Amino acid sequence: MRVLLVGAGGVGTAVTRIAARRDFLTHMVVADYDLSRAEAAVAALGEEQQARFSAFRLDASDQEAVRRALTEEHCDVLLNATDPRFVMPLFDAALAAGTHYLDMAMSLSAPHATAPYENCGVKLGDEQFAKAAEWEAAGRLALCGMGVEPGLSDVFARYAADELFDEIEEIGVRDGANLTVEGYDFAPSFSIWTTIEECLNPPVVYEKDRGWFTTAPFSEPEVFEFPEGIGPVECVNVEHEEVLLIPRWVDARRVTFKYGLGDDFIAKLKTLHELGLDSTTKVAVPGPDGRKVEVSPRDVVAACLPDPATLGDRMKGKTCAGTWVKGTKDGAAREVYLYHVVDNEWSMREYGSQAVVWQTAVNPVVALELIATGVWKSSGVLGPEALAPRPFLDLLTAYGSPWGLREER
Amino acid sequence: MRVLLVGAGGVGTAVTRIAARRDFLTHMVVADYDLSRAEAAVAALGEEQQARFSAFRLDASDQEAVRRALTEEHCDVLLNATDPRFVMPLFDAALAAGTHYLDMAMSLSAPHATAPYENCGVKLGDEQFAKAAEWEAAGRLALCGMGVEPGLSDVFARYAADELFDEIEEIGVRDGANLTVEGYDFAPSFSIWTTIEECLNPPVVYEKDRGWFTTAPFSEPEVFEFPEGIGPVECVNVEHEEVLLIPRWVDARRVTFKYGLGDDFIAKLKTLHELGLDSTTKVAVPGPDGRKVEVSPRDVVAACLPDPATLGDRMKGKTCAGTWVKGTKDGAAREVYLYHVVDNEWSMREYGSQAVVWQTAVNPVVALELIATGVWKSSGVLGPEALAPRPFLDLLTAYGSPWGLREER
Repeated sequence: MRVLLVGAGGVGTAVTRIAARRDFLTHMVVADYDLSRAEAAVAALGEEQQARFSAFRLDASDQEAVRRALTEEHCDVLLNATDPRFVMPLFDAALAAGTHYLDMAMSLSAPHATAPYENCGVKLGDEQFAKAAEWEAAGRLALCGMGVEPGLSDVFARYAADELFDEIEEIGVRDGANLTVEGYDFAPSFSIWTTIEECLNPPVVYEKDRGWFTTAPFSEPEVFEFPEGIGPVECVNVEHEEVLLIPRWVDARRVTFKYGLGDDFIAKLKTLHELGLDSTTKVAVPGPDGRKVEVSPRDVVAACLPDPATLGDRMKGKTCAGTWVKGTKDGAAREVYLYHVVDNEWSMREYGSQAVVWQTAVNPVVALELIATGVWKSSGVLGPEALAPRPFLDLLTAYGSPWGLREER
Repeated sequence: MRVLLVGAGGVGTAVTRIAARRDFLTHMVVADYDLSRAEAAVAALGEEQQARFSAFRLDASDQEAVRRALTEEHCDVLLNATDPRFVMPLFDAALAAGTHYLDMAMSLSAPHATAPYENCGVKLGDEQFAKAAEWEAAGRLALCGMGVEPGLSDVFARYAADELFDEIEEIGVRDGANLTVEGYDFAPSFSIWTTIEECLNPPVVYEKDRGWFTTAPFSEPEVFEFPEGIGPVECVNVEHEEVLLIPRWVDARRVTFKYGLGDDFIAKLKTLHELGLDSTTKVAVPGPDGRKVEVSPRDVVAACLPDPATLGDRMKGKTCAGTWVKGTKDGAAREVYLYHVVDNEWSMREYGSQAVVWQTAVNPVVALELIATGVWKSSGVLGPEALAPRPFLDLLTAYGSPWGLREER
């Protein structure tokens, strides 16, 4: 399998390190707008991998350039490891080139014009699902939301439906961590651009009787007990792909996503919003020669914070992604939490990648291997829960990163 | 008197409106980097003032251009209404041109290298006081900190020392308001650039036995009762010029400045600091054509907020500046609060300027009139408390904006 990886940031770099250990990969073209980032990712793999990996300069927003790269490099699949702004040009380029496509976040939402905290406007992934027929007709697979959340969390939901429950009342993806970063007052462990996007957009909830609807940001706070020593973390509703994906393939009465942000982070995000600094609408400020230049406030927030991919050495703790499911099995009530924990110390030692980034990156590599070996074989625009969960979970364990199941009652 | 006013922002524009009503002014050249702002300020004065006021494009950071403008326009004095970054080029240009100089904020401080929250590094105004001998030799007056705070607050301190007290134990400038801005979650009523500068720098305190020293930001919170219906507001130590100016000319055992910021504003400023968004060190972000441009995070914060000078129509409430003095008179303990309150409704109706901006602007105009009429006559680098306070306070009252005295006990 020949892969075009677009994006050599934290997640992209971790993808190369995980993929380098697997045989299914014939070649991976590592592309980035900043060629030096792509070159650094490839160089870090060592001498013996230089034939299998190559660096490439590519503008992810230039659909035609991406299509050309896929064709000229004879790629079978495009793996998108950029931020969600570039989903559509990359998705469309893969369709045009006739390759498969994987991403870890879906096309962006837009709030409802008049009732943003009640009704959905444009939903996450709507733009991609609108082209499902074209992908089916082309016989190619666009596997969307195939990171850890969305991604592994969706696989857990399908696994629960297939093997653990007869009927499902509620599926709640719950994400929490006890990571700290030495020497920083505040240093998010994941892309702040994406974190702002998902936390400040109106959170989406699914109910079978009502369909998808939205609430005010940070709604329905609950304290969730995370496993393996992480302990209790306050979680709130956040806009996330799982809520849009799971109900399409898994029968459940309610689906939510709650993120363990903690009070302090929530307060900071609220302040950014009140000051208008979360905005991507450009503002004019004095540039280098005194003339005004237009910049996005959210880009400036990101530029002021340390790059989360570089913080691994100063981070301590574990991150947990998982899916809590409540329903009945054989006539009895059942409640489980299916989860995946990564200890930063382990991921740094084994891969030189920090825990959150590594946990995101391992899942698309597992998925690529299932596609390469023909275990996962389908076409159209699909979520991870559209495909058989068992082979995925077994292969993830074989990658040295097992998952867990906690019976809640 | 011919005046070069540099800066046609909120304060500069209010200066033109106040000065237009006074006869002492022969001509005012209204200069701004953005010529359209200067033209708008002049045009707003009406037909009959077009001969006395003219608009001029000027880069306040270009000392030689400012010197040339002063000379070619035959100005007697430069009034600096820009932000504190431009103090030194304007101050030096006036010295080179042989004119008087007034500002409303002094040259910037720099924190102590190793103990920033204990010791002063470079203090506010140090760069200006270093040139005092040159101003004296030239026979020209640099009157520094001649707005409301510093400015009127310093005049109050000198007035208290001259007329109200035999011995002064403590002088505490106290600033508070009950202003609200309709339709905004958060809209500071004064330049956020300057507010960040003064609130996040280590606050400076003066004690006769110890000299000047610094504390951690937001230290020594106290609730101060403001007059004329404003009521109690939580105040904290903030770096401000009065603490550096007053002890040079007024004998007091302790001098502080406390700003009535309120909890919410303090929390927002702390968040900006934790995220690095208060910084003026430039960061690289994507510019209009995708290439990186370097911008100052603090400029971006300012650009995201509404221009405080434009909020007058939506503002409600009063702002109070004043000086609390504690000591003895005729052997008895005495404590007074000398203050000046501006009601936004009044300043908008009378001058079309919002209260905070108008209150800052009126004081340098009063000072210019005292210099023009020869009542204030001196040379060197001086603070407002170096000059006779009574004529200033009487003329301020004659401008229609009286001050008050509250006996505390």
